[in-house]
Amino acid sequence: MPSSPSRSPQAALDLLRQRFGDRLETGLPIRTQHAHSLTWVTPEPPDAVLFAETEADITTSVEICRGHRLPIIPFGAGTSLEGQVNAPRGGLSIDLSRMNRILAVNHGDLDVVVETGVTRKQLNEHLRDLGLFFPVDPGAEHATLGGMASTRASGTMAVRYGTMRENVLSLRAVMADGSIVTTSRRSRKSSAGYDLTRLLVGAEGTLGIITELTLRVYGIPETVLAAVCPFKTLEGACNTVIQSIQLGLGLARMELIDELQIKGFNLHSGTSFAEQPTLFLEFHGTPAATAEQIVTFRAIAESEGALGFEQAERPEDRNRLWKARHDAYWSAKALRPGADLFATDVSVPISRLADCILETRRDQEASGIVAPLVGHVGDGNFHLVPLFDLKDATEVAKIKAFTHRLVERALAMGGTSTGEHGIGQGKMGYMAAEHGTGLRVMRAIKQALDPEGLLNPGKILPPA
Amino acid sequence: MPSSPSRSPQAALDLLRQRFGDRLETGLPIRTQHAHSLTWVTPEPPDAVLFAETEADITTSVEICRGHRLPIIPFGAGTSLEGQVNAPRGGLSIDLSRMNRILAVNHGDLDVVVETGVTRKQLNEHLRDLGLFFPVDPGAEHATLGGMASTRASGTMAVRYGTMRENVLSLRAVMADGSIVTTSRRSRKSSAGYDLTRLLVGAEGTLGIITELTLRVYGIPETVLAAVCPFKTLEGACNTVIQSIQLGLGLARMELIDELQIKGFNLHSGTSFAEQPTLFLEFHGTPAATAEQIVTFRAIAESEGALGFEQAERPEDRNRLWKARHDAYWSAKALRPGADLFATDVSVPISRLADCILETRRDQEASGIVAPLVGHVGDGNFHLVPLFDLKDATEVAKIKAFTHRLVERALAMGGTSTGEHGIGQGKMGYMAAEHGTGLRVMRAIKQALDPEGLLNPGKILPPA
Repeated sequence: MPSSPSRSPQAALDLLRQRFGDRLETGLPIRTQHAHSLTWVTPEPPDAVLFAETEADITTSVEICRGHRLPIIPFGAGTSLEGQVNAPRGGLSIDLSRMNRILAVNHGDLDVVVETGVTRKQLNEHLRDLGLFFPVDPGAEHATLGGMASTRASGTMAVRYGTMRENVLSLRAVMADGSIVTTSRRSRKSSAGYDLTRLLVGAEGTLGIITELTLRVYGIPETVLAAVCPFKTLEGACNTVIQSIQLGLGLARMELIDELQIKGFNLHSGTSFAEQPTLFLEFHGTPAATAEQIVTFRAIAESEGALGFEQAERPEDRNRLWKARHDAYWSAKALRPGADLFATDVSVPISRLADCILETRRDQEASGIVAPLVGHVGDGNFHLVPLFDLKDATEVAKIKAFTHRLVERALAMGGTSTGEHGIGQGKMGYMAAEHGTGLRVMRAIKQALDPEGLLNPGKILPPA
Repeated sequence: MPSSPSRSPQAALDLLRQRFGDRLETGLPIRTQHAHSLTWVTPEPPDAVLFAETEADITTSVEICRGHRLPIIPFGAGTSLEGQVNAPRGGLSIDLSRMNRILAVNHGDLDVVVETGVTRKQLNEHLRDLGLFFPVDPGAEHATLGGMASTRASGTMAVRYGTMRENVLSLRAVMADGSIVTTSRRSRKSSAGYDLTRLLVGAEGTLGIITELTLRVYGIPETVLAAVCPFKTLEGACNTVIQSIQLGLGLARMELIDELQIKGFNLHSGTSFAEQPTLFLEFHGTPAATAEQIVTFRAIAESEGALGFEQAERPEDRNRLWKARHDAYWSAKALRPGADLFATDVSVPISRLADCILETRRDQEASGIVAPLVGHVGDGNFHLVPLFDLKDATEVAKIKAFTHRLVERALAMGGTSTGEHGIGQGKMGYMAAEHGTGLRVMRAIKQALDPEGLLNPGKILPPA
């Protein structure tokens, strides 16, 4: 259909302006901020940003945008890493951060109902005095729960508590036709029809705009113990993780940090960790259960060349440890001041973890690439943070080739092109290799639920 | 399109006969057996039954049936409870029970790859000597894993280990267009695109025919302890379960059996359980962890009016206990010899469990209905097994009205019309009430993936 004055992006923006006034922002700084991306994907700002305050704001926007074929890009906190919030075809970025009310805490059912813009930090501060916590922790503490659901986020505690896939019990979403869907009842279990919750979790806003979430929460464990365990070799650290998983030890966190990244921590945070491949650990449970876990874990670690095991029981010591871990991205920068960097991730079956990491290490050495490694290795998931100069085309090409080999290596080992960062724009090129005919099924679903391609176009599904 | 000799069910059957010879059965006994249903849904036999041996048999059948508009009904072991294997529009039942090879046990990754017709009993016998087990246990030990995935089965251990939703890591399926889709890689975690695994789990064969599954398995715990805990009141038993869940005790099994069903066990199996509302329990873990769990559990139970706590540690004692539980359906019959019966289930948020069960009990008493109760109450999920005379129209009407009230009660409490039996034909009437606009989304997905309505028509989605 040809665009006409009455059916054009500009007409949609005019209508949105009439309806929302100053809550519609078209200034370049705000638009640029909403295309900000911690990746080398080029920022592509939207035409406008709407600060939504209610679900009705969203249904109204969808109505207007659909009538005028203006794309919609849902925006949480902009912490996604693969260009998920970019606007390659222009459009309206709907900023959901003001929809930040905690609607219910059902203590008896261990669930909460929140608006999409609530951050995990905000939720956990609210829950702490109730003796509860929400475990999914992708690092960015201001990430919104809606954004985390949309990218199927996971992070440090997924090895014990699962990812957003397991912890979103139900959600509400505005669909491309403007209808509002609640994907499931609040009961824990159901076998009533297709699993729409899991379909929208990880869909990166391409199938619907999440407005509300029912999330599983947990009682704060009686004992929480953190520990730092440096190893002689990267291989020994990997093997310790593999054996702990195979024994079903149930650690709450099991993070691998290579010697390079440890050096970054020390430079950035003034810590004095031994500059060795290291596991950061956390044990949750009763005093007796955690003591048992630690005994078994230490026996494995010692047989794999652990150089020590330092416990941190006081909350402030634990927090220092996990703050260092969460600052990995920024402390990597300390290794080459002024460098550009980005985080990439893959995941493999745990039995191939050591193979994949060691082959990648050899590749790095052969190609002269500096890329510290951190990883949620209990899930077979690890990140590399290559340091390079974005203005140096040769370096950029070298890094691109390296990350391409990393993905191919993971796929060849039965792994995935992305364990937790999502596809966005950055990994679209691997969808066919990863999913084969499954990609056709995904396209058919997208076509059925969003025939005009209104919702976050140019993400997840590569051009046919 | 009008049917013609070259495009008709009979032409399809002729082609199937040519292709498969004696593996295509059209005799009434086999056809009737494939429409067998442990429910009051009227059996509706298919036109023919194909005993598939390979995935290629299935793609060939889909090709032939699609060309001639002959419906396809996937069949595992026929243990589903809501008419899932019926053929309301005739068609070809594809019996998958001969596709029963265990293809791989990846001990290091704690996963297995199996053909769709492998039964859970067969898998667990295979795994036992490897120190592994597969926990999803819907009771019917000859249920096939493909059927269990299709109905999103759960059962006694879901409270600790999750349902088929959590334990199917990936699957292969033949889609309505004849293509073969693998839904995910073997890595535990991925954020690469739409979650096709969870879409097909619970789809009851209406979106694709599952041919192969990658399943999560677990190490057999060091200690497995079962126990029987009778209570003064049904309310006390419910409250004990609720508090155990809220404390995150992590029991592996927590089954409520009411005094009527206990009486059935005693009549059927010659056991001598106290005829009281009773919890059957199982504790998994290390010796120290299970001992801790038991101390905490008993303290809760005693404060809620427990009358005893009898442990069964020897495998033979444990097996006797769980055999009694699994025979619930048959032992219910002992309460009224000659009676007809069927099992129905709902699930509610755990905080509403006692309310829902006690209101239902009052309803039973007021309407003079005999219906023993068993339940996976840790999930808020319980079953009733009404006893009645199928030839007595008044009794049938009374039972129908009672089960209708049960579903409405569960829905009003934030629950679901079915916790684990699925929708099939029996619960289709509640899809609109349960899902609202979500039902439209499900219809759109079905239309996109199976536009001709070839796969298991007349199930899950009620007529528009």
